[in-house]
Amino acid sequence: MTMQELQKRSNWAVRVERIAADIDALSEITEPGRPWTRRAFTPKFLEGRKWLEQALRAAGATPRTDAAGNLIGVVPGKRPELGSIVVGSHSDTVPDGGRFDGIAGVVAGLEVARALRDQAIMLDHTLEIVDFLAEEVSIFGVSCIGSRGMSGTRPAEWLTRTSGELALEDGISQVGGRPHEPAQRDDIKAFLELHIEQGPVLEAQKLDIGVVTAIAGITRIEIVVEGRADHAGTTPMSARKDALTAAARIVLGVEELGRALAQGGHHFAATVGEFEMTPNAANVVPAQVRLLIDARAERREDMERFIADLQSAVSAIAATTGVVAGPAHIISDNHPTPGDPELLDVLDAACESAGARHRRMASGAGHDTAWMARITKAAMIFVPCVEGRSHAPDEFATNQDIALGTAVLLDAVVALDRKLQEIG
Amino acid sequence: MTMQELQKRSNWAVRVERIAADIDALSEITEPGRPWTRRAFTPKFLEGRKWLEQALRAAGATPRTDAAGNLIGVVPGKRPELGSIVVGSHSDTVPDGGRFDGIAGVVAGLEVARALRDQAIMLDHTLEIVDFLAEEVSIFGVSCIGSRGMSGTRPAEWLTRTSGELALEDGISQVGGRPHEPAQRDDIKAFLELHIEQGPVLEAQKLDIGVVTAIAGITRIEIVVEGRADHAGTTPMSARKDALTAAARIVLGVEELGRALAQGGHHFAATVGEFEMTPNAANVVPAQVRLLIDARAERREDMERFIADLQSAVSAIAATTGVVAGPAHIISDNHPTPGDPELLDVLDAACESAGARHRRMASGAGHDTAWMARITKAAMIFVPCVEGRSHAPDEFATNQDIALGTAVLLDAVVALDRKLQEIG
Repeated sequence: MTMQELQKRSNWAVRVERIAADIDALSEITEPGRPWTRRAFTPKFLEGRKWLEQALRAAGATPRTDAAGNLIGVVPGKRPELGSIVVGSHSDTVPDGGRFDGIAGVVAGLEVARALRDQAIMLDHTLEIVDFLAEEVSIFGVSCIGSRGMSGTRPAEWLTRTSGELALEDGISQVGGRPHEPAQRDDIKAFLELHIEQGPVLEAQKLDIGVVTAIAGITRIEIVVEGRADHAGTTPMSARKDALTAAARIVLGVEELGRALAQGGHHFAATVGEFEMTPNAANVVPAQVRLLIDARAERREDMERFIADLQSAVSAIAATTGVVAGPAHIISDNHPTPGDPELLDVLDAACESAGARHRRMASGAGHDTAWMARITKAAMIFVPCVEGRSHAPDEFATNQDIALGTAVLLDAVVALDRKLQEIG
Repeated sequence: MTMQELQKRSNWAVRVERIAADIDALSEITEPGRPWTRRAFTPKFLEGRKWLEQALRAAGATPRTDAAGNLIGVVPGKRPELGSIVVGSHSDTVPDGGRFDGIAGVVAGLEVARALRDQAIMLDHTLEIVDFLAEEVSIFGVSCIGSRGMSGTRPAEWLTRTSGELALEDGISQVGGRPHEPAQRDDIKAFLELHIEQGPVLEAQKLDIGVVTAIAGITRIEIVVEGRADHAGTTPMSARKDALTAAARIVLGVEELGRALAQGGHHFAATVGEFEMTPNAANVVPAQVRLLIDARAERREDMERFIADLQSAVSAIAATTGVVAGPAHIISDNHPTPGDPELLDVLDAACESAGARHRRMASGAGHDTAWMARITKAAMIFVPCVEGRSHAPDEFATNQDIALGTAVLLDAVVALDRKLQEIG
């Protein structure tokens, strides 16, 4: 939306120029010559955290780092015994990533605190703005380290994972955490996250906000196809066991199953993201292909259907081509996380009140919200991003769209401060 | 065939036990712990050459190394002014290769010389037994170095190709060649090569000998498919440009075109031997696939048809999937080399005379014969190998089959010694 539309539609205290300045400031804290890279556990990440601490203080929030390594700005409530409403996201990036994935939600949290202070609104609940540690897949090969810590779901064995000479426990200590102290919270009453969509739907449908019904379950499935290495020149086409031509049929089977399930009205996506062939020599019939399927489902029943249909398809392809394929090996299998129904209603109402065009939609990507849902009511909203580009230098969202999302977040926080006491 | 069958069917001077001993002796000259590896330009290769020199001398042939680095055993003829009849193959192997690819033909040459001497037959033509240098793709990335040298088709710029600190010119010097001297021969009147089939046809059809009608032309075609890297979780199935699913369609298109052409009665094979995908990350829609097609055709018109149909198929796939694919880029394009018609007739007759069950067939693989055909009448015969396995440790051919092939070679050499004088 344009600046004029934005200002006409709302007279909230959220200020787009402050959001723009924050995003710009964090953009400048990047590895030299790499737009934009602020990897968790690096000096640049700590530089970003230092900037955030200052910004939290300026917003009237007292910064602290919890045991799990999350940076938290605390604005005490009038009735701190009610517990906390938490908003936030993460400030770390993928390598050569974008300026908005995670950052938008952290900046939105800052602006919610500033807008409340500008209006001299003091909530009953304590408000916390959180920058979760290492949401992106980190140098330790794992993601959501901070939100898993705060939700008590970080596996104990992760602490001794290493990257070069650094162990995760050392990394957490270096950012100010205390890796061996308990970090799980039980005093959080609601968690809200604003994030860029990382997909093309809102932009294509000219909408301002996606109210996230569920964070898709992610299942990773490995299939190994074993053919036979033969001389590519001398082995007749009819006498081959070509692992590649069999694997190509599996790839198209995955696409077909994925498309069929996606037409059911709930988010479903299936991708063959890894594909490795051996011996990968010009004059040898391919002997083996390993493929890794990434499947995402808003509804668990869709994933179960996919897994079953995939197994049948792979068996049928093996039978007709003569290769050995499968069985499909499930590497990881996380169920969908539905958004809290009451929070979704509050977010819908906040969209209406802010004048935002909105829809409900699932998140195909994982987020810290999925872990926070283990310990509190949790939900998230999406703001549009250009062409769905993300995890790439050309990731882009407008300051106006982020500001409107922040207005929705602000309205929802104020509404929840009251509503949480009613539903008690 | 069994030993009994072999002996019943022929009473030639070819001795299977000498062939067995030679193959065994060369088998033992291998990199420690790697069955069987005797790479050109290595100390093991030189050790093999030293053994061969002794074996040539013992067979009554005088060894010399020509300017191109080929080891040649010379048995002078009664009328050396007639020129030479040359038989041979190569003693170098692929890494972890077999005991027979190339070796069988060199040993057959040795046995032809011994069998003639045993029978006190002195040919009119000079007989030469050749071990071509580096027929297999060498550490310098090129193959048939020796036969290209002898046929005057070795590109001048090859000499400065390097592998580590070694230049090819140094490698040729180290084996006793003189890389900067001319090596092209004009005094060779016929060239014959015995080789294992490296395919399953003779074994499946219970035949002893394949008389090779043509060495297939080899065309290598690269296709790059450009899709778009998107988030695998958030990008709807309908909004993707997935390079892998498009490339899978191309792979199946190559297979379909190859199978159709192979049904035309002449050898045709098409293989996608190299397939590389980027970014090859679990949660990213594949952005790019590079595939390399290896196509082999006995008839040039089949190859031209394949190239044209492939271009159409790739364009159609790009149009329906939204990726950018192609144009197909022809990396190399060698035409088929037909066997010399008169030599083929001589070889057919030799099979009959030796009691060998034979057929005519094309070679899908490249051989030194294809280069020798540039300077003389040339043809080759195949002997069966087990399950078509080659370029692998389990490559296997029986000594009896090699001995029968050697008997055919011997008969053909004797016949040619006369016939070449008739046809002048």
